[in-house]
Amino acid sequence: MSALKFSEATNDKRALEEGEAFTPRFDANGLVTAVVTDASDGMLLMVAHMNAEALALSIETGIAHYWSRSRGSLWKKGETSGNFQNIVEMRTDCDQDAVWLRVKVTGHDATCHTGRRSCFYRTVGQKDGFATLSADGSVPLFDTDETYRKKS
Amino acid sequence: MSALKFSEATNDKRALEEGEAFTPRFDANGLVTAVVTDASDGMLLMVAHMNAEALALSIETGIAHYWSRSRGSLWKKGETSGNFQNIVEMRTDCDQDAVWLRVKVTGHDATCHTGRRSCFYRTVGQKDGFATLSADGSVPLFDTDETYRKKS
Repeated sequence: MSALKFSEATNDKRALEEGEAFTPRFDANGLVTAVVTDASDGMLLMVAHMNAEALALSIETGIAHYWSRSRGSLWKKGETSGNFQNIVEMRTDCDQDAVWLRVKVTGHDATCHTGRRSCFYRTVGQKDGFATLSADGSVPLFDTDETYRKKS
Repeated sequence: MSALKFSEATNDKRALEEGEAFTPRFDANGLVTAVVTDASDGMLLMVAHMNAEALALSIETGIAHYWSRSRGSLWKKGETSGNFQNIVEMRTDCDQDAVWLRVKVTGHDATCHTGRRSCFYRTVGQKDGFATLSADGSVPLFDTDETYRKKS
């Protein structure tokens, strides 16, 4: 359990936008959005979600924790793959419903469950009236079958 | 109205992660998360949301459109401030429920409604068991009172 406390979210627009208290505005599911970039070159690695516990643990320990919506559980990213995220800096936005983590990834320097460095490995285009995707050529940096089978 | 079509989101994990069709997985509110960075230096500018219409218009026109959750309406960002976002590249993530826009901002080169370049102008820390914020010193790049009053 985390000991860190968040003051209650305020309706005071000035305090929310200019104040010095971090009062995250969790959504109806108790979550804020977390944007994660590589501190070295700004590559967007992933978008995830945090509940209050995951957010507090991330601030306290300096290692990124999330709330897994698919599994419905706290998720210390890297526990299975070894690809932990050390937080270099955390920021929040004007209305305090999102956080930005600049991280250094350990292990294989991979964030995506497909084994790639980033989850954002495809560009969006259009062809014949439909939206299309093109892979950027990035490849898995570790054996995901082996890693996820071994630990499960 | 946009003419661009999205094929229906698939339950086929391999098609979702490795396929060449962009089949966005809109949430229960019909939205995907949009992460917006400056194409020049990777600064995170904002996090917003898009419904199918905003996403299609963004792809078709190359100018970022969002769904404003607070106003409940389509939002061509920059219509009031002149700070449009020209999309240099759009990407999606492994499970296609988020998009990443790398943009060039026109006008005052400002994205935040407070007038700052980025919405993420405060770093998160802790003091005496509470989570705190520290401003990064960025200042408004235009007169927001004048701009938003004039056009409203």
